[in-house]
Amino acid sequence: MGTDGQGREDWMGTRLDDFNDFRGRMNGRILGEDHPAIKRFFGVDTLTYHAGALDERTKEMLGLVSSMVLRCDDCVSYHILQCHRLGVSRAEMFDIFSVALTVGGSIVIPHLRRAVAVSDEVEENARRRSI
Amino acid sequence: MGTDGQGREDWMGTRLDDFNDFRGRMNGRILGEDHPAIKRFFGVDTLTYHAGALDERTKEMLGLVSSMVLRCDDCVSYHILQCHRLGVSRAEMFDIFSVALTVGGSIVIPHLRRAVAVSDEVEENARRRSI
Amino acid sequence: MGTDGQGREDWMGTRLDDFNDFRGRMNGRILGEDHPAIKRFFGVDTLTYHAGALDERTKEMLGLVSSMVLRCDDCVSYHILQCHRLGVSRAEMFDIFSVALTVGGSIVIPHLRRAVAVSDEVEENARRRSI
Amino acid sequence: MGTDGQGREDWMGTRLDDFNDFRGRMNGRILGEDHPAIKRFFGVDTLTYHAGALDERTKEMLGLVSSMVLRCDDCVSYHILQCHRLGVSRAEMFDIFSVALTVGGSIVIPHLRRAVAVSDEVEENARRRSI
Amino acid sequence: MGTDGQGREDWMGTRLDDFNDFRGRMNGRILGEDHPAIKRFFGVDTLTYHAGALDERTKEMLGLVSSMVLRCDDCVSYHILQCHRLGVSRAEMFDIFSVALTVGGSIVIPHLRRAVAVSDEVEENARRRSI
Amino acid sequence: MGTDGQGREDWMGTRLDDFNDFRGRMNGRILGEDHPAIKRFFGVDTLTYHAGALDERTKEMLGLVSSMVLRCDDCVSYHILQCHRLGVSRAEMFDIFSVALTVGGSIVIPHLRRAVAVSDEVEENARRRSI
Repeated sequence: MGTDGQGREDWMGTRLDDFNDFRGRMNGRILGEDHPAIKRFFGVDTLTYHAGALDERTKEMLGLVSSMVLRCDDCVSYHILQCHRLGVSRAEMFDIFSVALTVGGSIVIPHLRRAVAVSDEVEENARRRSI
Repeated sequence: MGTDGQGREDWMGTRLDDFNDFRGRMNGRILGEDHPAIKRFFGVDTLTYHAGALDERTKEMLGLVSSMVLRCDDCVSYHILQCHRLGVSRAEMFDIFSVALTVGGSIVIPHLRRAVAVSDEVEENARRRSI
Repeated sequence: MGTDGQGREDWMGTRLDDFNDFRGRMNGRILGEDHPAIKRFFGVDTLTYHAGALDERTKEMLGLVSSMVLRCDDCVSYHILQCHRLGVSRAEMFDIFSVALTVGGSIVIPHLRRAVAVSDEVEENARRRSI
Repeated sequence: MGTDGQGREDWMGTRLDDFNDFRGRMNGRILGEDHPAIKRFFGVDTLTYHAGALDERTKEMLGLVSSMVLRCDDCVSYHILQCHRLGVSRAEMFDIFSVALTVGGSIVIPHLRRAVAVSDEVEENARRRSI
Repeated sequence: MGTDGQGREDWMGTRLDDFNDFRGRMNGRILGEDHPAIKRFFGVDTLTYHAGALDERTKEMLGLVSSMVLRCDDCVSYHILQCHRLGVSRAEMFDIFSVALTVGGSIVIPHLRRAVAVSDEVEENARRRSI
Repeated sequence: MGTDGQGREDWMGTRLDDFNDFRGRMNGRILGEDHPAIKRFFGVDTLTYHAGALDERTKEMLGLVSSMVLRCDDCVSYHILQCHRLGVSRAEMFDIFSVALTVGGSIVIPHLRRAVAVSDEVEENARRRSI
């Protein structure tokens, strides 16, 4: 929420790097505090996406759709990165977005816009690296 | 929410039939009203779960996890029925529950309890029919 | 949530009376506690729906759609009763439901079903009284 | 959420233009994907606010209050623009904000602040154009 | 949600026993499945309320207010039981309810009514045992 | 939501001043409108955190955990400032964060990151002032 209309071009170019940087730095601060329940929660969070009866790819898709209906832009960005890494195609991504939109309603649309912007950036980055 | 502790055995025995009956009857009342935007919304809802880049089974799993993090018991029941029909196993179901629990937190637990009760009932019904 | 499939016919016949009875009794318990901030909150709640720049009828419609997207069955029942009392027609009610459904998504549908059941009961009660 | 404290004056001056620009551009990207269910959802979204039993103006007010209790800043901005276009006065706007605040609680206040900032900008823009 | 108006007297008399029974039975079903991430989540959930920098009593109060603003009746019932066990007085309970009501808005009121009914039952049970 | 990755260093340095400035200015605009129900809601909001059966410090902790599970960054910042002012230690702060994380799930993590960044800034400011 609320990031719309604040220098999009700029946001498009550097958002993922900044996001990953801030995410890494603050996760370090949080885990550095050594709080037992918080630390173990982070462990559960990691374990949840390990392959089980469902493979890692399907679990990341489940994480993405959950993040989208709960309207958490950072979580959406994170799971788009994971989905892309695990080979989820753009067409599959839009099927996930479609479930989130129908279940969560038009209130999801601003997050959908930002999710598409993130997908575009992820794909653009991948194209650049492959040249 | 709120169904806990209200004659569970009873609820367990007849809930799915009653749920399906009320669901069918009220959907009839709603669509019978012939409201253009509501009618078209129901059309979109159906279309969303048709096979596309992702198959129907994956889409129902996405619908289930979304319903669970948004804590809608009826939606959870509905998608459990669909997942079961499409061959999602009990172990896969628990992987979906696990993502919902981690993403949505302990607030999801009461819905998880009811989801497991529904899964139990669906499996029990299937066993009876196959005798 | 969760009331689906629990003896609907029964629910349909007595729900509004029971709801009003429990509501009245517990509001009495709450206000009887004489907690200053809670008491003043209830005062603000009443004041909010008094005619201002918008009339009472429009404000109750705003209350209804808000309750529906936030998925609170009791709040929806309450505002349906108020809207009906202030002359909101069935067709207008469905327009309100339609906005709630589009904004809030398919997760609203179980609440829409119960809202239509409540509307049916309110209309049926009104018909009986007018005979 | 989260836009507070990031160069407010600046935000005040250009937010609506940037918002409309990003919104238009990304809606183009989304619809350009030609996903059947997403496309039809956008169609339902448009249809929902067409005059029916309730006029367009009342429906936009319903959309505004819904967006506010669901705490979506972009949706709030959009519906404020529509309400202003359809002649909803500042006093009526505050009556809508008041319902959202009472129903949704103090958690709505940061969104109320941004909504008032948007209303101020919309009115300022209108004044400038009318000189 | 949704339990209002469904034989309150009845609900009042047996709800806590039924709730505890269903809760215990289904937790057994869930943990019996031996799903690693779900099991560890339950471990974290328990650990979270152990005394740390804050004592158990304060943590249960935090759990209660969180459950109430997230509007989960079962979670509210559970934390009321814990708070009562740890000596939180009725007056303190209403202070917690008051924060939940102000932060979460009037949408919390139906849950407040049920919370007061649960508190009444817990106190009544305590009185009976002490005779 | 959404503030991640937008010039964090910058955000870290000036966020609290900007937040307080925007907050004060817009609260002035809101109260200056003299809307009776909105004005009284602000009064209730203030009253809620006055010492009663629970002291101010405990109430602010309840406000903080509520804001966090409801994922409102501005509300979280505000209550962190209040908690710090009332002597809540960093270790106690992390106990509050831990309850919010367990109850609200991994969707709370991005808000936890920003909460820790705000706590860091508040502590840094306090250190500077005490030199």
